[in-house]
Amino acid sequence: MPIKKGNSAEPTLKKLPKRIVTQPSKKLETFTSPRPGRAFEIRFETTEFTCLCPMTGQPDFAHLTITYVPDQLCVESKSLKLYLWSFRNEGAFHEAVTNQILDDLVSAIRPQWMRVDGDFLIRGGIRTLVVAEHGKRP
Amino acid sequence: MPIKKGNSAEPTLKKLPKRIVTQPSKKLETFTSPRPGRAFEIRFETTEFTCLCPMTGQPDFAHLTITYVPDQLCVESKSLKLYLWSFRNEGAFHEAVTNQILDDLVSAIRPQWMRVDGDFLIRGGIRTLVVAEHGKRP
Amino acid sequence: MPIKKGNSAEPTLKKLPKRIVTQPSKKLETFTSPRPGRAFEIRFETTEFTCLCPMTGQPDFAHLTITYVPDQLCVESKSLKLYLWSFRNEGAFHEAVTNQILDDLVSAIRPQWMRVDGDFLIRGGIRTLVVAEHGKRP
Amino acid sequence: MPIKKGNSAEPTLKKLPKRIVTQPSKKLETFTSPRPGRAFEIRFETTEFTCLCPMTGQPDFAHLTITYVPDQLCVESKSLKLYLWSFRNEGAFHEAVTNQILDDLVSAIRPQWMRVDGDFLIRGGIRTLVVAEHGKRP
Amino acid sequence: MPIKKGNSAEPTLKKLPKRIVTQPSKKLETFTSPRPGRAFEIRFETTEFTCLCPMTGQPDFAHLTITYVPDQLCVESKSLKLYLWSFRNEGAFHEAVTNQILDDLVSAIRPQWMRVDGDFLIRGGIRTLVVAEHGKRP
Amino acid sequence: MPIKKGNSAEPTLKKLPKRIVTQPSKKLETFTSPRPGRAFEIRFETTEFTCLCPMTGQPDFAHLTITYVPDQLCVESKSLKLYLWSFRNEGAFHEAVTNQILDDLVSAIRPQWMRVDGDFLIRGGIRTLVVAEHGKRP
Amino acid sequence: MPIKKGNSAEPTLKKLPKRIVTQPSKKLETFTSPRPGRAFEIRFETTEFTCLCPMTGQPDFAHLTITYVPDQLCVESKSLKLYLWSFRNEGAFHEAVTNQILDDLVSAIRPQWMRVDGDFLIRGGIRTLVVAEHGKRP
Amino acid sequence: MPIKKGNSAEPTLKKLPKRIVTQPSKKLETFTSPRPGRAFEIRFETTEFTCLCPMTGQPDFAHLTITYVPDQLCVESKSLKLYLWSFRNEGAFHEAVTNQILDDLVSAIRPQWMRVDGDFLIRGGIRTLVVAEHGKRP
Amino acid sequence: MPIKKGNSAEPTLKKLPKRIVTQPSKKLETFTSPRPGRAFEIRFETTEFTCLCPMTGQPDFAHLTITYVPDQLCVESKSLKLYLWSFRNEGAFHEAVTNQILDDLVSAIRPQWMRVDGDFLIRGGIRTLVVAEHGKRP
Amino acid sequence: MPIKKGNSAEPTLKKLPKRIVTQPSKKLETFTSPRPGRAFEIRFETTEFTCLCPMTGQPDFAHLTITYVPDQLCVESKSLKLYLWSFRNEGAFHEAVTNQILDDLVSAIRPQWMRVDGDFLIRGGIRTLVVAEHGKRP
Repeated sequence: MPIKKGNSAEPTLKKLPKRIVTQPSKKLETFTSPRPGRAFEIRFETTEFTCLCPMTGQPDFAHLTITYVPDQLCVESKSLKLYLWSFRNEGAFHEAVTNQILDDLVSAIRPQWMRVDGDFLIRGGIRTLVVAEHGKRP
Repeated sequence: MPIKKGNSAEPTLKKLPKRIVTQPSKKLETFTSPRPGRAFEIRFETTEFTCLCPMTGQPDFAHLTITYVPDQLCVESKSLKLYLWSFRNEGAFHEAVTNQILDDLVSAIRPQWMRVDGDFLIRGGIRTLVVAEHGKRP
Repeated sequence: MPIKKGNSAEPTLKKLPKRIVTQPSKKLETFTSPRPGRAFEIRFETTEFTCLCPMTGQPDFAHLTITYVPDQLCVESKSLKLYLWSFRNEGAFHEAVTNQILDDLVSAIRPQWMRVDGDFLIRGGIRTLVVAEHGKRP
Repeated sequence: MPIKKGNSAEPTLKKLPKRIVTQPSKKLETFTSPRPGRAFEIRFETTEFTCLCPMTGQPDFAHLTITYVPDQLCVESKSLKLYLWSFRNEGAFHEAVTNQILDDLVSAIRPQWMRVDGDFLIRGGIRTLVVAEHGKRP
Repeated sequence: MPIKKGNSAEPTLKKLPKRIVTQPSKKLETFTSPRPGRAFEIRFETTEFTCLCPMTGQPDFAHLTITYVPDQLCVESKSLKLYLWSFRNEGAFHEAVTNQILDDLVSAIRPQWMRVDGDFLIRGGIRTLVVAEHGKRP
Repeated sequence: MPIKKGNSAEPTLKKLPKRIVTQPSKKLETFTSPRPGRAFEIRFETTEFTCLCPMTGQPDFAHLTITYVPDQLCVESKSLKLYLWSFRNEGAFHEAVTNQILDDLVSAIRPQWMRVDGDFLIRGGIRTLVVAEHGKRP
Repeated sequence: MPIKKGNSAEPTLKKLPKRIVTQPSKKLETFTSPRPGRAFEIRFETTEFTCLCPMTGQPDFAHLTITYVPDQLCVESKSLKLYLWSFRNEGAFHEAVTNQILDDLVSAIRPQWMRVDGDFLIRGGIRTLVVAEHGKRP
Repeated sequence: MPIKKGNSAEPTLKKLPKRIVTQPSKKLETFTSPRPGRAFEIRFETTEFTCLCPMTGQPDFAHLTITYVPDQLCVESKSLKLYLWSFRNEGAFHEAVTNQILDDLVSAIRPQWMRVDGDFLIRGGIRTLVVAEHGKRP
Repeated sequence: MPIKKGNSAEPTLKKLPKRIVTQPSKKLETFTSPRPGRAFEIRFETTEFTCLCPMTGQPDFAHLTITYVPDQLCVESKSLKLYLWSFRNEGAFHEAVTNQILDDLVSAIRPQWMRVDGDFLIRGGIRTLVVAEHGKRP
Repeated sequence: MPIKKGNSAEPTLKKLPKRIVTQPSKKLETFTSPRPGRAFEIRFETTEFTCLCPMTGQPDFAHLTITYVPDQLCVESKSLKLYLWSFRNEGAFHEAVTNQILDDLVSAIRPQWMRVDGDFLIRGGIRTLVVAEHGKRP
């Protein structure tokens, strides 16, 4: 996705370190658990999830919490950021997208247990939370 | 912007009221102040502003507060929503976009006074707030 | 407004003190300030204001704060409750209704100073606050 | 319910997108669960519920939370909004209306489990919470 | 209890709806559960409980929470208010009065389960909470 | 006021230090300012004020804040406690009693400046705050 | 412990009720449970505990919470205040003093269950909490 | 002040770095301002101040805030800790001790401006705050 | 680690107690549990943990909570401070370092149960929490 | 500063985007103000500042807030991050380092006004805040 030039005045930068333009990606990178035999817990929290309402095309926003107990693999957090970014311009129902994120992450790392909490901001006076879970919390 | 079909399973809706797909828009609608002679104050607050970093193309998020004292015209809030949406896929520096929003709103309604607060979420451990003001608060 | 019978099962009350069914009213009752010569301040806060959106007919909700410095008269709080209730089934724009409440209260008690803050709950991701003022705070 | 014209000054709107006037409705729309075999949880929260006190006819306000685990069907959130609106001009005891909402929702979607929390704002110095539940939380 | 005339200046009320002077009362009114077969939960919260210290005669204040699962009967909330008021001029130890309220309520409605939380404000640098329970929470 | 014997079971105290039963009192004790020439500020805050509604005889509760700059005299805090207690069984309008407390304290210590904030708990969905002031804050 | 005369200027008190100077004491007074057959819970919370660091002699501060289910006896709260005061000038390790308080209280009232939470304020950037328990919570 | 041996069991420390036993002290150490020509502000906050009530000998606790603009000298914070500790076993009225701390600090560093806020914890249901100031805030 | 001289102006200290320059250390000191037979709980909380990102070398920050039930030995808190300091200039992945701290502490004191919570501050819009546990909480 | 290899187990990363190892730097990059003629305000907040105590060599932590009104130039936020990082292994007194950061930033961008707030975490029970300012806030 090339960065569209907005109509906001662009300041002239005198000297800035080069930064490579990154892209959203559905690909989740993983790494080996630092303690493969131990059922420890990892939680990611972000207030920066956004997708589109499939009915109206308007933006929806959510706070996401992803909690899991790894088995052999862990999710690499930078690739998770790019993965969550990939929903930005997709139409997605609250109930469906929360389950989809769970399924994609379970496919990628096969955890002992995982839960995804999607806390979608108020629409029509109603805040909607969706919680999907995989496996039993040890 | 047509709604891109994501890979999230779409539930079959049995019966839903038709909703027209809306579009982001730079056009700000206005209406006549209900008390043209009175210097009253209006404040809009949203936690749903997002644009792109012009250096990396990655999403940025902000909480926006727009406060103003109208002269003859007020901003219509639904068109404001579509206007803020229009930044979603544009590259924008924090300092520049906050000033741009102020300038666009001032052009549209010529208020007695206006202030835009942009509270940009943490990047590199630093949260950035930008406050731009037009005129003197009566 | 007669109370419409809902389809919710009504419990059989064994013995309850009679309570007279009251009505919403635009009439604001007043009483003489207990210290007519002193510029003291009175503030009413309620989270129970509701009216209708004039565009869609759907309910709107607001938190209202009314602050004033009386001159000769004070607002009686029970009649204020009935007055605020009177907006329940009326169409009202946020900016207009906040100013209307100010005007009605100023007419009733002629205060040295008064301010009405209307904090309207989120619609389209945006919370709207309207602040209208009469006179100078002493 | 036609929108009654209030005495608040109506601003002249220059150009606004047409919006269809909607009505409250007891009918709850549903859609098929995006993951019919998975016991995931959905929660709706609103601070915008209001009905009338059956004894005095005066408005009551509540914060409602509806939590459930779907079986085959989910509640569509826009129809839920219209359903909750339908209580606006009905007389309803706190204990009865909370149970009624549970029963209506259970009839509509036959969930694996559901709970309705009604948190009614202070009357006579007392805040009342009613929690009604259907089935066992999986 | 006749209202003692204080030395605070009484404002002249121009026109106020008649209100009958009520009295504190140990009598708890009840009504039939709207869903006699369902184990739902009701909670009353008040920050307005006061009694007297039996040692010094000085006022004590507490925040009370009463939670219960009704069997056939529910407590009517206005009579509960009058009942709690009845302790205002009685001497009562924290531990004893919390249990007494539980016993009186259990006698009146024979609930499946009930709990009374008394949160007594700081005396001598110490805040005291007393929690008394009847039956097993279903 | 003799302590009325309530129907709450009285525990048998084995050995307790004697405490003298105290009485409410309108008399405010004072002491000489520790720095008579310095305009320093003293603030008392309590959440334990209660009086009676003059219309219905029912209890009202308020959070009181008393702030002042002494001249020659300060208020002794134990006598302030007994003074505030003296309103417990008196009928008092919110607006009047807040001003009365200000007047009584000003009579007792002739401060350079004083303010009394009365924050009266919710009645009829409305919270009422009354702020009365004497002199100019230095 | 005689009150050492500090170098802070002592105001001249005009008329104050005599108060007997009290002393810290290791003796815990008790009273008979008002409901000896009922397993109810009592909790004391204080932010006013202080002792000395046994290594450096410097003051330590803690927030203490004492929770218990009485058997036949309850702790009298004024004697508890004097008891906690008794640690003021004693050297005490966090882990040891929390257990000591539990042991002393258990000796005095033989409760069904008791827990002491000591929340010691930050030293060296670290806050330390110690929780000691006696018996099983019923 | 030698550390009195309490009756709390002393754990056997295996190997701990030696720490010198320190003493409370009225002596305030100072250092030269790092920017003698600049009116910058320094604020110390502590929740660990305690002294004795001069009437009853019982402990009082306060949260202290000391704010100042230095002239040539600053207060060294470790000596401030020892200074505040020196009040631990002294009798001190709230109003007097707050002023005393201000006077001692002003004597030690002659600041351009200084304020001491003493927030004394609840006694008799009343929290007391004392604010004493020296000079004008630049 | 010798303290590198920064370019910040160093104030001239007039008279300060000598303090020995300490060093970070991987060595954890211990002491005998004050109640070896009792399963009590100890919790350390700090907001002052920092290490380096092994990918970029940039600083990471975390809030750490260490909770345990001792068996025969407890962790001495000053040595814990030096131990946590030892990570300051080491590269460490969030998941790995949380487990490493658990393992080091378990080796040092062989507790009945221990848990380490690492709450790492936001990077790329995502906050990461890692919870590692040893043994079963009694 | 090369990343020292810690003793924490390093997970094997399967595939990660290359990231260039960065270095702390005293050099502050700038860019031209997007509205050179307008006195708007920019605020940076971070909870991730750390340096060393010059007396003991131990780590200190602070929350920093930098607020300014630019003239011609703005601070680039990534270079600000590297600049704040540069204090990590330097000895710095609270009062001195806050002023030093102000001076360095003022040198780099010559703002109309700037303020630096350093909120240093608790040491010896005392939290220290230092506020240094340059110029007059427009």
